[in-house]
Amino acid sequence: MKALIIAAGEGKRIRNLSRDLPKPLIPLLGLSLIERVILSAREAGVREFVVVVGFKGKRIMERLGDGSRYGVKIDYIENPDWRRGNGLSVLKAKGLISGKFLLMMADHVFDPGVLKDLLGRSVDKGGILVIDRKRREHIDVEDATKVRIEGELIRDIGKGLKDYDGIDCGIFLLSEDVFDAIEESIESGDDTLSGGIKVLAKKGRMRWFDIGERFWVDVDNEESFKTAERLLLKSLVKETDGPVSRYLNRPISLRISRYLVNTKVTPNTISWLSFSLSMISGLIYFLGGWASIAIAGLLAQVSSIIDGCDGEVARLKFQVSRYGGWLDSVIDRYADGMIILGMSYASWIIARNYMAWVFGFLALMGSLLNSYTAIKYDQIVKERKVRFRFGRDVRLFVIMLGSLTGLIFFTLIFLSLITNAENIRRLILVRHNT
Amino acid sequence: MKALIIAAGEGKRIRNLSRDLPKPLIPLLGLSLIERVILSAREAGVREFVVVVGFKGKRIMERLGDGSRYGVKIDYIENPDWRRGNGLSVLKAKGLISGKFLLMMADHVFDPGVLKDLLGRSVDKGGILVIDRKRREHIDVEDATKVRIEGELIRDIGKGLKDYDGIDCGIFLLSEDVFDAIEESIESGDDTLSGGIKVLAKKGRMRWFDIGERFWVDVDNEESFKTAERLLLKSLVKETDGPVSRYLNRPISLRISRYLVNTKVTPNTISWLSFSLSMISGLIYFLGGWASIAIAGLLAQVSSIIDGCDGEVARLKFQVSRYGGWLDSVIDRYADGMIILGMSYASWIIARNYMAWVFGFLALMGSLLNSYTAIKYDQIVKERKVRFRFGRDVRLFVIMLGSLTGLIFFTLIFLSLITNAENIRRLILVRHNT
Repeated sequence: MKALIIAAGEGKRIRNLSRDLPKPLIPLLGLSLIERVILSAREAGVREFVVVVGFKGKRIMERLGDGSRYGVKIDYIENPDWRRGNGLSVLKAKGLISGKFLLMMADHVFDPGVLKDLLGRSVDKGGILVIDRKRREHIDVEDATKVRIEGELIRDIGKGLKDYDGIDCGIFLLSEDVFDAIEESIESGDDTLSGGIKVLAKKGRMRWFDIGERFWVDVDNEESFKTAERLLLKSLVKETDGPVSRYLNRPISLRISRYLVNTKVTPNTISWLSFSLSMISGLIYFLGGWASIAIAGLLAQVSSIIDGCDGEVARLKFQVSRYGGWLDSVIDRYADGMIILGMSYASWIIARNYMAWVFGFLALMGSLLNSYTAIKYDQIVKERKVRFRFGRDVRLFVIMLGSLTGLIFFTLIFLSLITNAENIRRLILVRHNT
Repeated sequence: MKALIIAAGEGKRIRNLSRDLPKPLIPLLGLSLIERVILSAREAGVREFVVVVGFKGKRIMERLGDGSRYGVKIDYIENPDWRRGNGLSVLKAKGLISGKFLLMMADHVFDPGVLKDLLGRSVDKGGILVIDRKRREHIDVEDATKVRIEGELIRDIGKGLKDYDGIDCGIFLLSEDVFDAIEESIESGDDTLSGGIKVLAKKGRMRWFDIGERFWVDVDNEESFKTAERLLLKSLVKETDGPVSRYLNRPISLRISRYLVNTKVTPNTISWLSFSLSMISGLIYFLGGWASIAIAGLLAQVSSIIDGCDGEVARLKFQVSRYGGWLDSVIDRYADGMIILGMSYASWIIARNYMAWVFGFLALMGSLLNSYTAIKYDQIVKERKVRFRFGRDVRLFVIMLGSLTGLIFFTLIFLSLITNAENIRRLILVRHNT
């Protein structure tokens, strides 16, 4: 299936940000707006794109090229009439696209998950429009295109609707019917895409699809640009984030990732950086002495924060790989091990009691098995059957606190108890939820 | 979909084993023959059964009841003509079964996996017969029903075929057509099921399905009974079994499981028993002294052997549960941890060198992460891209050897190196195979 992207308009209201760039090329968290649209569709399985360009179209074509850099194929259509209604841009694709196709706007930012669900729908005639039925603070209702629905059909669409049920999100799954509909609309004096959709709606051929909890933003001024950035970052918070992650690590790591996405640093490099910090932390414990122990503890917490960045950057730049995620999880375990090894040695040096090693062993076992049991346990967390999650974020935070206060022997005892108790709790919880 | 099971015959040639039992009730590795057939079909998703009984039918009905004990529904049909051809037994189900159905013999033992594949096939008319195209030593070719095939169709079937392509395994996926076919066959003087199948074959309505590498046995005398037992046990050897498991642990654990299936001991109880042995092993190391260390090492190896039995018994008695497998894997990790903890303490007591603890830590980390990486790695092993597997079986065997020779410090160093090197090897192998 092909995707058609409309990237012809000028975007006057965002000139501050765009400077001399056409709006689709405005950079947002490491990718230009149109790159994000293309990669979102790619993630949902689309490999062929047709981009309609107009205002500064050459710049867009130069940037995206034939699409091979993104692992897709991109063809272009130039629309010299870009100053007129956007229905004309869509109409330019007539004859170049057959069967059902995805239609998107180059300046909309949205949760890529919506496409995966949408593309599963069948469209023989007419089409499906993604709409937003929630009242969201950031939407400029005045300027938005509204829709009125009845059952599964769209009954009316337009900016001027007084009574409406949702907002047009600018994402469509369409059949070729739309081209005739736009022509019909143009004949009656309306050259917008909404005009064409309205023609289909009046014939009872336009259905809707609710975007639900997922976010979307029509970027057309500085304010909505900032909203898009904020919502994109917010979407990186995981359901399985523990309390320390949610309130401390994630807010910091998101700020770091926001910077890192504009560099060439890869997610795997970040994973190894976090790992190296943990290794250094473990080694510093071996130096002994309060100052070293405190520094080592702080370093452990820093590595815990950095450890959030690899996944964030990967998701923001569509560089997620199954191997990358797995590699990260394996080296995180080694990182945990080295830190606890260092703590055990330091405790033993201080207390000269072999029980430091025994508790170190138990803490290591408990920690590694926390991660081992997490695979099953997180399925339950995601189903919202359990809300509290005692994980790596909490462990490393406790280690930092224990190291700063010099109570590392006590911290090892505490970790031995809490991590292993947590594992037993999980064994029981999983038993009752499978 | 329903399954029809023919359990009407007498089975004269197996009287030695059956004594006063009807053949379908002869116990084999913890389950009677017919129970195994029912549970195999249940595992493939079948929930409704019709059993045709004849010789000592009452005993069978008493034993199986309404099937609720097996989580299925069982109805019975009595065939007073059980002394005549088995086509009559099948014909008794006419009118009681609609649409496609599975037909099996109560005295056949086979790999349950075959049903999962077979039931995915569609059958509108005629049917599909599972055949064996391999020459297997244990099959009594003289007495077997042979088939001749052409393309995907069965052309002829019968005991007397001189040229043939495979053996009838006694497992069928049939449409209701078979009832008319049997009636037609009876009219022409042949009251066997094969007669009916032959009628369908001649009409080009009978297809075949190759059982492939999977085992099956028609149990009709003492020799084939023993073959069935042997092949069932052999099917428990896993592709991911490491070398020590394959040549030492598995042969012993299979002998133990063969005994355990006839008791009420559950797989989970066996898991906990193996775990307890490891815990005791770990504690005995704390006693110190060569004798204690040697005993602890032996106990670790014994627990490794017993650890194979839980899965074996579970699979033999259809008691496999996802939770059970997971629980086993989690407590195995604790078992590993306790043994290595004990070894580290004993090494430290002997050498009075804290490096014993450091290597203990590294060995523990390497061992636990062996299991952590195994989840991904085993996918590659199963695809036969890699043959060697360094796993728990090898680790515990090395621990036993090290303990018997008193070289536990050296063993910890060795395990630290080998387990962590193996993890690095896996990181690289998985990278190149995903």
